[in-house]
Amino acid sequence: MVHVFGHLSPDTDATCSAIVWAWYLNTHTSHEATPFVLGELNSETSFVLQRFNQSVPELLPALIPGTEVVVVDTNNPQELPSNINEMQLLALYDHHKLVGGLTTDVPTTITVRPLACTATVLFDEITAHGHTISTDIAGLILSAILSDTLGFRSPTTTPHDKDVAEQLATLIGVDISTYADEMFAAKSDISGFTDSGLVKLDSKKFAVGDKNFRVSVVETTNPATVFARTEGILTAIRECITTEGDIDDVLFFVVDILKEEATVLTYSDLTKQVISASFEVSVTTDTEVLPGIVSRKKQILPALKL
Amino acid sequence: MVHVFGHLSPDTDATCSAIVWAWYLNTHTSHEATPFVLGELNSETSFVLQRFNQSVPELLPALIPGTEVVVVDTNNPQELPSNINEMQLLALYDHHKLVGGLTTDVPTTITVRPLACTATVLFDEITAHGHTISTDIAGLILSAILSDTLGFRSPTTTPHDKDVAEQLATLIGVDISTYADEMFAAKSDISGFTDSGLVKLDSKKFAVGDKNFRVSVVETTNPATVFARTEGILTAIRECITTEGDIDDVLFFVVDILKEEATVLTYSDLTKQVISASFEVSVTTDTEVLPGIVSRKKQILPALKL
Repeated sequence: MVHVFGHLSPDTDATCSAIVWAWYLNTHTSHEATPFVLGELNSETSFVLQRFNQSVPELLPALIPGTEVVVVDTNNPQELPSNINEMQLLALYDHHKLVGGLTTDVPTTITVRPLACTATVLFDEITAHGHTISTDIAGLILSAILSDTLGFRSPTTTPHDKDVAEQLATLIGVDISTYADEMFAAKSDISGFTDSGLVKLDSKKFAVGDKNFRVSVVETTNPATVFARTEGILTAIRECITTEGDIDDVLFFVVDILKEEATVLTYSDLTKQVISASFEVSVTTDTEVLPGIVSRKKQILPALKL
Repeated sequence: MVHVFGHLSPDTDATCSAIVWAWYLNTHTSHEATPFVLGELNSETSFVLQRFNQSVPELLPALIPGTEVVVVDTNNPQELPSNINEMQLLALYDHHKLVGGLTTDVPTTITVRPLACTATVLFDEITAHGHTISTDIAGLILSAILSDTLGFRSPTTTPHDKDVAEQLATLIGVDISTYADEMFAAKSDISGFTDSGLVKLDSKKFAVGDKNFRVSVVETTNPATVFARTEGILTAIRECITTEGDIDDVLFFVVDILKEEATVLTYSDLTKQVISASFEVSVTTDTEVLPGIVSRKKQILPALKL
């Protein structure tokens, strides 16, 4: 049985892509496949799965070497089980920069495209083989595109992602704008997360010079609900730094989807320093608003410097 | 201008794939592209280029960081310019196992398939976009498939490679068997190479346990012409070990394309040891015949152990 899964801190693209590809393998190939996730789902992803009649994938169990796997939405071994290179990687579908480190014993199928989300890559693969998709699968792909592009607001959006989303919305009869608002409202409900859960909800480790950061992002239509919890979040950040041991600090960005701006917590000398240097601002207070910044991948990570 | 190139020790697939993709970029996209090679061509590749009216690509010059490049037929930084990770990698097309190490600053196009040769991957890309190819381009792709599959004899051959080759042969009106014989006759003419040139003609560095080897292969329909030069080849191997500094020994395989067997030079204690352990034979003399062994990628490298 093929295990299909995406990255740690699963988001809508990682989760939907795993479900979509497991569906494809089960319905259009001789493989039997099951989708898995590598952590708790965020409230947007839970909403999407419910909306399109999917059960929540189980947590990926420990895998024995040689297990057949398909990896979606990452090529970074640090975001995958620690023994990933001992697995039999049947295929990898992704849309992130190549970080190196993933290896295979034999040639395999690797498809990475500079698109906004992995689900678009999967849609292209499925349709290139002349296959059709069900309404629910179409809904998952549409949701992943709207999630990763923030409803086409993110600079990661390509014309092709938008075109695919519009095709799918027509197919399943939903109004994109209305549905995106519903998704983002679900995403903005953070009441189910602890402060520590919020810090790690959508978080990637990233080296800047000789310092290591977690770069955490909370995308929301209602930033006030996040800022109401700033004190608890700061406590969670300090605990996270102590517990993890391999990071120097946490950059916590609150992205206002509707205003298209990010507010970053600059509570420490190091966060003040890195945000000042990276975004050419002079940070003096404990938060900094960065107009126009919505994408970690395209705008935040490439800018970070000390 | 996009630089398109394959690996060091260029073979027919690396060279033809670079020419094919540069042609594709020039004729079907807005990119201007030029194919390059990373070393002297073997006699088979020279024959193929002449047969299908191509000039020999120039040697790749030193590249400045940020140069737009497309890499074909390898994902191994050790087989590429040392500053490859400072280039702007527009795309990579390959059919080898993933070795890790290649990185990019931004998401890019990566297409790796478990097929016999990169040219088949390129054919699929071109035809998936509905484009047609000229007779000469078809001839280059056909030649790369016949070269990497040794005329469908290698276990790396997939039904799809064979199917593409047969389509192309029909298109350009050549008889596959006759043309493959011509290619292999050209490949078997080693008179133009020095002994040192033969050792490095088709050679990859490969670690086995704590030892590092060059694994060199000469594919030929006339092994006698190689063995007539054994003394000179052994001198070249000893010089190579001394000069390069980072290898412990050279495994030199002569693949008899027609008999479908390999003869490996087991001139030293270390080569005797590794061949005995890897192929479950008891090597006592200075050559060992390995029946059925024709593919470095599929049969030799996976077997190597100490």
